[in-house]
Order: sequence, then C-alpha cells, then structure tokens
Amino acid sequence: MDFFSSNFKLGILGGGQLGKMMLYETRKWDIFTKVMDASPEAPCKIACNEFVEGSLMDFDAVYNFGKDVDVLTIEIENVNVDALEKLEHEGKKVYPPTKALRTIQNKATQKLFYTDHNIPTAPFTRFAYTSEIEDSISNGGLQLPFVWKSAQFGYDGQGVKVVRKIEDLNGLPNVECIAEKMVNFKNELAVIVSRNTKGEVKTYPVVEMEFHPEANQVEYVICPARIEDSVAQKATEVALKVAEHLQPVGLLAVELFQTQDDQILVNEVAPRPHNSGHYSIEASYTNQFEQHIRAILGLPLGKTDSKVAGIMVNLVGAEGHTGDVVYENMDTILEMDGVTPHIYGKKQTRPFRKMGHVTIVDEDMARAREVAQKVKETINVISK
Amino acid sequence: MDFFSSNFKLGILGGGQLGKMMLYETRKWDIFTKVMDASPEAPCKIACNEFVEGSLMDFDAVYNFGKDVDVLTIEIENVNVDALEKLEHEGKKVYPPTKALRTIQNKATQKLFYTDHNIPTAPFTRFAYTSEIEDSISNGGLQLPFVWKSAQFGYDGQGVKVVRKIEDLNGLPNVECIAEKMVNFKNELAVIVSRNTKGEVKTYPVVEMEFHPEANQVEYVICPARIEDSVAQKATEVALKVAEHLQPVGLLAVELFQTQDDQILVNEVAPRPHNSGHYSIEASYTNQFEQHIRAILGLPLGKTDSKVAGIMVNLVGAEGHTGDVVYENMDTILEMDGVTPHIYGKKQTRPFRKMGHVTIVDEDMARAREVAQKVKETINVISK
Repeated sequence: MDFFSSNFKLGILGGGQLGKMMLYETRKWDIFTKVMDASPEAPCKIACNEFVEGSLMDFDAVYNFGKDVDVLTIEIENVNVDALEKLEHEGKKVYPPTKALRTIQNKATQKLFYTDHNIPTAPFTRFAYTSEIEDSISNGGLQLPFVWKSAQFGYDGQGVKVVRKIEDLNGLPNVECIAEKMVNFKNELAVIVSRNTKGEVKTYPVVEMEFHPEANQVEYVICPARIEDSVAQKATEVALKVAEHLQPVGLLAVELFQTQDDQILVNEVAPRPHNSGHYSIEASYTNQFEQHIRAILGLPLGKTDSKVAGIMVNLVGAEGHTGDVVYENMDTILEMDGVTPHIYGKKQTRPFRKMGHVTIVDEDMARAREVAQKVKETINVISK
Repeated sequence: MDFFSSNFKLGILGGGQLGKMMLYETRKWDIFTKVMDASPEAPCKIACNEFVEGSLMDFDAVYNFGKDVDVLTIEIENVNVDALEKLEHEGKKVYPPTKALRTIQNKATQKLFYTDHNIPTAPFTRFAYTSEIEDSISNGGLQLPFVWKSAQFGYDGQGVKVVRKIEDLNGLPNVECIAEKMVNFKNELAVIVSRNTKGEVKTYPVVEMEFHPEANQVEYVICPARIEDSVAQKATEVALKVAEHLQPVGLLAVELFQTQDDQILVNEVAPRPHNSGHYSIEASYTNQFEQHIRAILGLPLGKTDSKVAGIMVNLVGAEGHTGDVVYENMDTILEMDGVTPHIYGKKQTRPFRKMGHVTIVDEDMARAREVAQKVKETINVISK
C-alpha cells in the first residue's frame, strides 16, 4: 500500500507531546492522521488532519474512534484496551498489539511476565490492595525499604513511592500494587527496540539516564551511555529478549538498571516513543518517531546509529510556580552551539510538569555534557 | 519578548512546501502562525494556527492579512510588495525588508544592484519587451547564444530560456526581460547567508548543485561542495558582500557560478529558505528553517556546521505523467541507510513539478553520493 499518496488514515490515541512529535513525521510524509485526546487544548490538535475530543479510557470513544482508521497506534499506554481488542478482533491493525499492551499496562502483570520468561528484574511482591502491605511487613513477609508502585496508571512519578518506614504508606491509594525491592544501581539505562509488522528488529544505542531526585523524572538522557561495551551489549541482549517474548510492533522502550556488580535488570517498558529517545530527533539517522511510523506501517526500519553525541534535558515546571508559563533565558541557551529546545505547547506550568525538552548535540560527548549542564542551570520554566 | 509563551503571532505569506517546513519549527517552539495562500489545498493549511485563503499578489489581501500579525515573513518572493511597504511604514516588522525584496523581485533590478555594487555577475542587457531583442541581435548589439529571463515572476524554470538561435525567441512572452551572457561554468554553487534583526550574520557551508538539463531544476544539492577551500572561501565572501549591501533579515540564498578560471559570479538570490538548503534538516546543527525563524525573531543564530555529509535529491514529476500522484518504490529507498524522503503533499503530479525531496546523509561523502544515485534511479513520481 502506498501510504504516501493513498487515502490511508492513521489513528493516534493521545494528543500530547509524543503524539505531537509523531505528527512531524506524518506531516513529512503527508500521511493522513486522526487524533483523539480528552483535552481540546491538546498539543496535537493542530497538525493532525482530524481531531476528536474524547476520553482514552472510554470504551465507546476509543472503539468509535478506531473504526474508520486503517492503522491505530498510541502515544500513551493508559487507553481502553477492551475497545482496542474488539477492534483487533474485527480485523483492525492495532499497534502495539493488545496482548503486549495488556501485559505492560498492569505493572504486576508486567513483572510476572519478566519472571515467567526468566528476564532479570528486581524481586517484588504483588498486593491486591495497599492496605495488605502493613501486615506483610509486620509478619516478616516484606522488608523495608521498598518501592511501592500502583499496578495501574503510573506515569511521570505518579503511582510510585519509595517506602522507607511504615508511615510512608500513609496517604497512598488503596489499590492493586507491587512492593519492589530497591535496586542499589550503578546506572539507569534504556534501550529502544523497534520492531515492524514484518518482524524486522533494530535497537537504538544504549542510553544513560539521570533522574531528578524528588520528581522521579529524567533529568538527563545521554546517548551513547558512558559504560563498558560488555555492559552495553548485555543491556541490548536483555532488551531484545523482552521484545522477543512481548512481540511488540512499533517501538519498545526498555528501562534498565545496571547493578553494582554489572547485572542488568529490567525496570519497566513502554510500547511507544519514549522520553529516553527524544535525543534521536537531533542525534540519530532515524529519529524514534519516524521509526515508530515505519514500524507500524510495515516499512523498512531506518538506521538507528547516531550522527553525533546527544544529551536531552527535560524542561519541567519549577517548584513554586503554577500558572501561565514563561521560559526564562531561552535566548541565552539559543546562543549555545548545538542546542535545540522543544516546547510542547502546554500553556499552564506547575511544579515538575513536563513542559518541553532541550537536546544538546556535539561531536564530542564531554563538550555536549558541559553545554547540557549550562542549559540546565540557565533556563527556568516559571509562571508569569 | 518571549515568543515561546506569549500571544505573539507570526504571519507567513505562501503556504507551499517551504512554508510547510517552516511550520515544523514553529510547532517545535509552539509559535502561533497565520498563513495565507491562494489555494485551499496548500500544504500549510494544517499545522498553522490560522489559514487565510487569498492571493499573494493582491494588495488588499496581503495588507489585511498582515495587519494583525506581529512579524510578517514570506516563503516566496512573488508577493504584493506595495502592501508590505504600507505595513512596514505603519511599523509592522516585515522580513525580508521590502527594500531588499523589491531589489530581488525584478531580475533586471537585481542585476543592476550587482553591477552598482561591483558584485561579480554575468554580463546582461535589459529590455523593456522581449520583442526588442531581435533588433538588438540584428544590429549586433547582442550576440547569440544567451539566457533569456523574464524580469518578473520567474520560478522553477518558468521565465527562463536558453536562446541559441533567433527562432528560440518564438513563443516567449513579450515582457520586461534580460538577455544574460551564458556562463561556461565549472560548477554551480550556493551559499545560504543568515542575518538576524540585530545584524548578526552566519553563513552555511558552500553547496554544489547539479541541475536537470531540461527542467532547469536542481537534481542534486551536495554539502559540502567538493571544491578547493580557496574557491569555497571566495564564494562565501561574494555571498557576504551581497548580504552586506542588500541588508536582508532572515535567510538569503545566493546562487553562484564557478567559472572555468575559478571566478565566482552571482547568478541570483532568494531572500528566504531555499531548495539548496533542504539538506540542512538532516545534516546541519541548525536547519535553514529554524535559522530563518531565529533570524526574523531576533534570536541568536544557530550553528551552521554540518554533522554529516548531506545530499538532496528533488522528487519531481516524471515526464508523461499527469494526475493523482504515486511515489513508486518508496519502500526500496527506505531500506537504504541515511535516506529521508519529504513528501510535500501535492495530490496532483505533472512533468517536472516539485513533489518532494529526499535527503541522503552519511559520514562519508562518497558513500552518500552513491546512495543518492541509487535513490534517483529507484524512485519514480508517477500518476495512477
């Protein structure tokens, strides 16, 4: 099928920043797109051909949205999978496939998937309700500290909390959850695996992630990771093993821990373009969004190598600022070589809200890292 | 002014492929855009915030369009300059400035500008009407062969013809024109100069152009040009001299001839993003469209160096094909490393119509050139 000139229609569930960046690629190839998002303010609203306002969790909304598209994909995993499954059974092409999506959507199920397939991951206990955790601690079934994760709908630090003492459980929602052993890691890494409808697979270089301590959001993503080749190879093998058993179509971002003794453990995965791949827009031969489009349309996958070293800095709302956003000192960072800001178009900022990102590229990684630091120290996402 | 979060509004005259690629950058920075084009099918219609259907040559249409924007720019020079001048006098920021635009818009005036400022260019004679040329030849005032160029509204091979014998004049429109001495050139080169509102100037590397013999359209644009440094330096100096006297704001694409004895002559200029700069989207640290936006908003200019070698192949409609477009063998070129097609979104093809372009990037220029050749031999823009 000639996607570039036919009446083909691509459906995207979610109209946030990931969808927005995906649309740069559909525009580049003049592919007709239809997007659904709950917010009429969604960044995707312009640049898509058709916009539908609707809840991604609503069965009817998702089902009706998907009925008249040729291929359906997502920019976020929190969507109504039952509706996608019905569409899939009716012969609609849904990528990622709902089987993979279901496995991933629930963090308990996702963790069980790893253990079932001997994929290394941190030990964990599953709980039907958060309220059951306290008993388990008191009867010695569970040791402090651990990481509490709600099984469903965790995103950007929501639904995740480090529990060091019992009191830390206070105020947590009483939902299905897991208690995960804290990993004393040397590095947090990520590998983006791309897999197209024909089963062709290509991996991006291993990236290194630095998280913001409070917000639990990525502060720097560094590509390539500054690690030994043997570790990078092991990380890639583990990521490929996850993809082999999950059989995704599109992208699969695999977040990993490198332990003190250089074991690789899977943290979690996302079956879509991912924050850890934003650097690829400026640094890679094929950026992650184009690769996702290639994969779900059954086109040959693009070259995943980098042209230059790339570092991504998230632009998150400063603490103590809520309201109409202002990007302070943007001019100053634009004076620095190889600096590209991306503004997602959210009009309101709040503490730690992802408002955009900045990519820093350079032939020399050390220089890129210096500039990235300067960018981080210079720009402020504040309110008027 | 904080363009990234204010109610700032950018106006763009022309909604074709150049405007479309400019919109990738305004989207990236969430800059509010208003676009005018005569065609309701214009590629820019989606991805801009506001679209106005109107003729770029109509005084009222242009004037009314420009009244409520903060900065007004163009993607094509064939616009109503009188309207822009009125807006400029009323204090509107119009880039390129109308003085520069007027000089460029008429090819006779443009040529006189070069001679007035001792900028090297091919000898020429100006005629009020094409009909006067024949007399001039017969009385020995003009020698064959020469290049006939209509003074106004030449674009993509329109309004340009090589005249080898008097009969070649038949059928040419009887308009103001110039007869330019044919240059026996070694290379056709181009240099894109960027200049922002504060007078900061940066040049892109010299590119080398190969033209399609019949269509008079660029077939390959190769960056960097495979020429001696001394020639590249001279070409850059000439381009800077043009900018120095023309005082553009935004981009100025300077097309040059390298003669057999390595002189540099100015062919013509365009005060906007240019086909010779498309390679920059994949190859440069700052692509030409972002640079144009930086320049007209008075932001610091970005680094113009290349990350990798870049070659651009125009996708033009195949001869003998008119109608609904089909891009034949797109899958095959997508299998090649470092190949990025751009589809402009014109639904109808016709012989030599610019339908898109393909960029080929590689660390190694020789390899990029080989792939470019393969791309050219593989893809066909035909009708259903």
